[in-house]
Amino acid sequence: MISLALIGYGHWGRHLARNLTDVPGARLAMVSDIRSEQLAAARERFPRVSTTADPAQVFADPSVDAVAIATPLSSHYPLAHAALLAGKHVLVEKPMTANSEEGARLTELAARRRLVLMVNHVYAYAEPVRALRALLRDGTIGKPYYYDSVRINLGRFQPDIDALWDLATHDLAILDRLFEEPPSAVSAVGAAHLSPAHMSIAYLTLFYPDRLLAHVHVNWLSPVKVRRIILGGSEGFAVIDELDRAEQVKIFDRLMASELDKNATGDSRFDNRLGEMRSPKLPTVEPLSTAVRHFARCIEDGTAPLTDGNAGLRVVRLLEMASRSLAASGRPVELSSVPPW
Amino acid sequence: MISLALIGYGHWGRHLARNLTDVPGARLAMVSDIRSEQLAAARERFPRVSTTADPAQVFADPSVDAVAIATPLSSHYPLAHAALLAGKHVLVEKPMTANSEEGARLTELAARRRLVLMVNHVYAYAEPVRALRALLRDGTIGKPYYYDSVRINLGRFQPDIDALWDLATHDLAILDRLFEEPPSAVSAVGAAHLSPAHMSIAYLTLFYPDRLLAHVHVNWLSPVKVRRIILGGSEGFAVIDELDRAEQVKIFDRLMASELDKNATGDSRFDNRLGEMRSPKLPTVEPLSTAVRHFARCIEDGTAPLTDGNAGLRVVRLLEMASRSLAASGRPVELSSVPPW
Amino acid sequence: MISLALIGYGHWGRHLARNLTDVPGARLAMVSDIRSEQLAAARERFPRVSTTADPAQVFADPSVDAVAIATPLSSHYPLAHAALLAGKHVLVEKPMTANSEEGARLTELAARRRLVLMVNHVYAYAEPVRALRALLRDGTIGKPYYYDSVRINLGRFQPDIDALWDLATHDLAILDRLFEEPPSAVSAVGAAHLSPAHMSIAYLTLFYPDRLLAHVHVNWLSPVKVRRIILGGSEGFAVIDELDRAEQVKIFDRLMASELDKNATGDSRFDNRLGEMRSPKLPTVEPLSTAVRHFARCIEDGTAPLTDGNAGLRVVRLLEMASRSLAASGRPVELSSVPPW
Amino acid sequence: MISLALIGYGHWGRHLARNLTDVPGARLAMVSDIRSEQLAAARERFPRVSTTADPAQVFADPSVDAVAIATPLSSHYPLAHAALLAGKHVLVEKPMTANSEEGARLTELAARRRLVLMVNHVYAYAEPVRALRALLRDGTIGKPYYYDSVRINLGRFQPDIDALWDLATHDLAILDRLFEEPPSAVSAVGAAHLSPAHMSIAYLTLFYPDRLLAHVHVNWLSPVKVRRIILGGSEGFAVIDELDRAEQVKIFDRLMASELDKNATGDSRFDNRLGEMRSPKLPTVEPLSTAVRHFARCIEDGTAPLTDGNAGLRVVRLLEMASRSLAASGRPVELSSVPPW
Repeated sequence: MISLALIGYGHWGRHLARNLTDVPGARLAMVSDIRSEQLAAARERFPRVSTTADPAQVFADPSVDAVAIATPLSSHYPLAHAALLAGKHVLVEKPMTANSEEGARLTELAARRRLVLMVNHVYAYAEPVRALRALLRDGTIGKPYYYDSVRINLGRFQPDIDALWDLATHDLAILDRLFEEPPSAVSAVGAAHLSPAHMSIAYLTLFYPDRLLAHVHVNWLSPVKVRRIILGGSEGFAVIDELDRAEQVKIFDRLMASELDKNATGDSRFDNRLGEMRSPKLPTVEPLSTAVRHFARCIEDGTAPLTDGNAGLRVVRLLEMASRSLAASGRPVELSSVPPW
Repeated sequence: MISLALIGYGHWGRHLARNLTDVPGARLAMVSDIRSEQLAAARERFPRVSTTADPAQVFADPSVDAVAIATPLSSHYPLAHAALLAGKHVLVEKPMTANSEEGARLTELAARRRLVLMVNHVYAYAEPVRALRALLRDGTIGKPYYYDSVRINLGRFQPDIDALWDLATHDLAILDRLFEEPPSAVSAVGAAHLSPAHMSIAYLTLFYPDRLLAHVHVNWLSPVKVRRIILGGSEGFAVIDELDRAEQVKIFDRLMASELDKNATGDSRFDNRLGEMRSPKLPTVEPLSTAVRHFARCIEDGTAPLTDGNAGLRVVRLLEMASRSLAASGRPVELSSVPPW
Repeated sequence: MISLALIGYGHWGRHLARNLTDVPGARLAMVSDIRSEQLAAARERFPRVSTTADPAQVFADPSVDAVAIATPLSSHYPLAHAALLAGKHVLVEKPMTANSEEGARLTELAARRRLVLMVNHVYAYAEPVRALRALLRDGTIGKPYYYDSVRINLGRFQPDIDALWDLATHDLAILDRLFEEPPSAVSAVGAAHLSPAHMSIAYLTLFYPDRLLAHVHVNWLSPVKVRRIILGGSEGFAVIDELDRAEQVKIFDRLMASELDKNATGDSRFDNRLGEMRSPKLPTVEPLSTAVRHFARCIEDGTAPLTDGNAGLRVVRLLEMASRSLAASGRPVELSSVPPW
Repeated sequence: MISLALIGYGHWGRHLARNLTDVPGARLAMVSDIRSEQLAAARERFPRVSTTADPAQVFADPSVDAVAIATPLSSHYPLAHAALLAGKHVLVEKPMTANSEEGARLTELAARRRLVLMVNHVYAYAEPVRALRALLRDGTIGKPYYYDSVRINLGRFQPDIDALWDLATHDLAILDRLFEEPPSAVSAVGAAHLSPAHMSIAYLTLFYPDRLLAHVHVNWLSPVKVRRIILGGSEGFAVIDELDRAEQVKIFDRLMASELDKNATGDSRFDNRLGEMRSPKLPTVEPLSTAVRHFARCIEDGTAPLTDGNAGLRVVRLLEMASRSLAASGRPVELSSVPPW
């Protein structure tokens, strides 16, 4: 039986706690938060779990095997570092750290201590993303052309990160699962409308080899909510629309070259859809549940998580490159200009 | 009675012809097209209109007052130039010319000859765009923050222009109407997936003074059709969804600063919508009809069109800057680096 | 070459004319309308077609082979009757006649004269309806359970028919194609809100053998437009949404009995969708074009149309039964209470 | 401090419990359920609440002031009756009872004992329904023409009620709040496709004075989920779409008579929408929370609930009339044919 502790019982921490109490072979033993009213809420909800305002008590407790960290970004590194030093396995929220130096240090420490370090890239465990990955692997999409994601709504303004680090992280985590190779360069533009330090809108482009383009639009100040990913390729298309509960994934049959040829020279019109569309039945499981069970299994089996420290570090590096490009009005930042990964 | 001639009777030319025959105080007298089957179709549809395969006959005919040009882009300049030289007023399809040198020359020629030169930026005459302009002027939007446009579908591959020049032109024409000042810089990224010379997907960013950002996503290879513009500002939002016939324009009440403040520090969530939404009743008039009537009125009154040669030239210059940035993976191109306008 | 005449050049007549001019092996030779401005519009649009205000000239013209009738309902019978007497094939708009006596007489006359009498049940020729029929035939739907149609919008108030006769006719024509057997009884309710003689809203139920139920909601005074048919059966479902251009037909996999059983006793929830959904690629052809070509082929081949006079009569009889039930607040009217068909 | 007990800790009981624990001036003291695993779940979730398998213990406990009943329909009457006899205030789930005799007896008993008897017609407390009621009262809708509700999805098959009693109850409760007068007659049709005793689809019509029509479509076997109410009147329209989170209520400006007149005789088309549409900002409060707080306030103040026993009885009587009409294929059942209310 793995004994789990949770540090950070805010909005997301509550979701984590609910899922952590439902992992076979594990139990949530401890919750830590510096806010006393949050601890009271945790006790009310989980009367058998012990609580503490001091995370050091978590690390000092020899009965705790693993720690989940759901605190503001700036504290990810010190808390995860202390947990690893204390010999605990770590599940840390995304982005893993506030910069890549911290990320690299965590990754090295976990490797040296032979501890599981998992970043909670929760979308990597979502069924629609797993379906997309399968469609790329089985040839349905063909050679990938583009990945276009829109992730906008009237959102929470996070205290210590901006819309890019908050929302684009999801897409970088998904892209890390979809494509083998890293992007060769990144370009980003954006603006901070309400508070100077916080980009509230950003557009991120990743240039992959062989003309594959990924583009992400994140926006905290949109009057409409959109959560839609389009994946286009030589043989077909897939669309994830998170807000369409009934048809989250749609797959469109491949493009017929002959229609394209006719069109390239003539005056005729494409039809709006190509071939049959189908929407597969996906398992209805909460991605966070899949993620925390994966974490427990990795601890039991001593295997590396799909979203290990290296994956977390790759995402943080791309976020850093994006922020750098954004400060330079979209000037592309080459992967070769940053330390190797 | 203004006597009009139309050069180019393709897909769009047919729409033009239908509207040109319905302008009070004007009549469509002549249609020219190099394709004989198109001329036959024009005769079938408009039996009283004379037809010719040679545009020179249009220019030579002293009874023709004005010429509408709906041909492939590369021929815009020679045809419009010849028409102006022959003393005809000109309505030319967008983009006005294939480059800004040609555009500048046309504009100068029209000014010298005191002829009306109008670019058919048809969106500038669309009711939803006029509504947006009014919302900016009357303070409903407040200080504008961003303009975000998505213009994607499985489209026609045009023979001599790419998706950027084909589709983003609409947004540049709209932006030219919405905002007084030009953007200070442009960044664009894209990819040519099916034919090397044709960007089939492109993302265009325009940097305006005071942190106003405009972004345009155009795509000829999207499995879903989207035509949506979001305008965000300090006091409110407006959304144009062209495909929502019943509610093309939605206006959202202003953002309340207090909610933002609470959110910036706390853990609470914004509601998905702010204040009341309303969707005004707009006149149901075809934008092309408004445009061609405006052209006729400008000829009668000797006034400059809203979308005159200078507007056409501004749009072409931005397209050139975008193409330049696109070739450099998003490196921003400053307005100050191109000749003044 | 079949020579066609059209009587009635109103809104729908113009659509008919456009399609009648595009039938291989046939030509539109004559247009008749009592309104001189409509005849002028017809001449403007089709300069080679002769026009007349007097339908008697159509019937008297020996060169005319067939007549299409698109006039108000009350004149369907006298015009179609005169046309058949004059030896012309007849395509008459739906509903075929204002009552079943007239319908029966037309059907008999056409049979006696061996002339084609086709009712323009245009939905019977629509690709989505053909797809539904195929899904019933091939077992995808299984035993049919229900047909539910919603056909509402803010509509034209027709001068001489109400919403029931105007809109429900479409569904009765579709049902006539989908199911072999007639309904055993009809129940209808409704109300006339704006003009006493005109039901502006009506709900029609048809009871078929073996618990198959069809229900149709028609409404001329709805603020939202809906055109949706749901077909439910023991093995699957199909939905036609006319306003969803991209996905007009959706087919849902069959219901799993085991889930039902579990649910009948327990507290668990069904998932919102069952199995995979697919949306087939349908030919993009205008149903009216298919219909008029079918009419021409039946004349050439001497075969009976899919929607012949008998089909038209069946639909009129059901409309009469519905109106009778409606006047009695939904009291069911048995098929056995009306003359046999 | 009101001490509350809950009988029935199933799916809906859990929602009730969550809200009952959040009522100012009240506390959830006891939970009863005959299923031991449900009691265990209740203890886990609410460790301070006592539990019992025997409802008699609830009634016998003098510290319990009020009882909420969320059990299968057949047990509503015996449990509520026993609770009232024991001097407890009662909140009973809808429908109040399985027949009107039971309902009348409960109502009388509560009146005699001067206890609060509230039926949990939760929609009566929903913000969109309150908005609709206000629009009727303030003249925005004008004279009401029709109420059309579609409440369909692939649903749970309830053990002891059918789709009519399960789902149409919501609309009857809403109608009871919207309109002063009762309907004069009811007509219903339906079919039981999966289990003979369970109507899985039903259509219910209520005839109100002065041509006001209400129609409700309920369906447990629909592949698509719809929850939409349209309210039409002489001055305007309102639409509640429960599944459109951002715009639950839309209000459409009044119909212009002149357009109608023109249309009644001519061939012109209505526009799809009339005047401006607006979607008001509604408080985001869970209806169930409003309902249980209302119950507590009625106990404190000794006032009658909006949805008291009489309202519950009116709804049950209409359900009985509907079932009677349904068994007779839609034959209308007059209100005057049932005992007075």
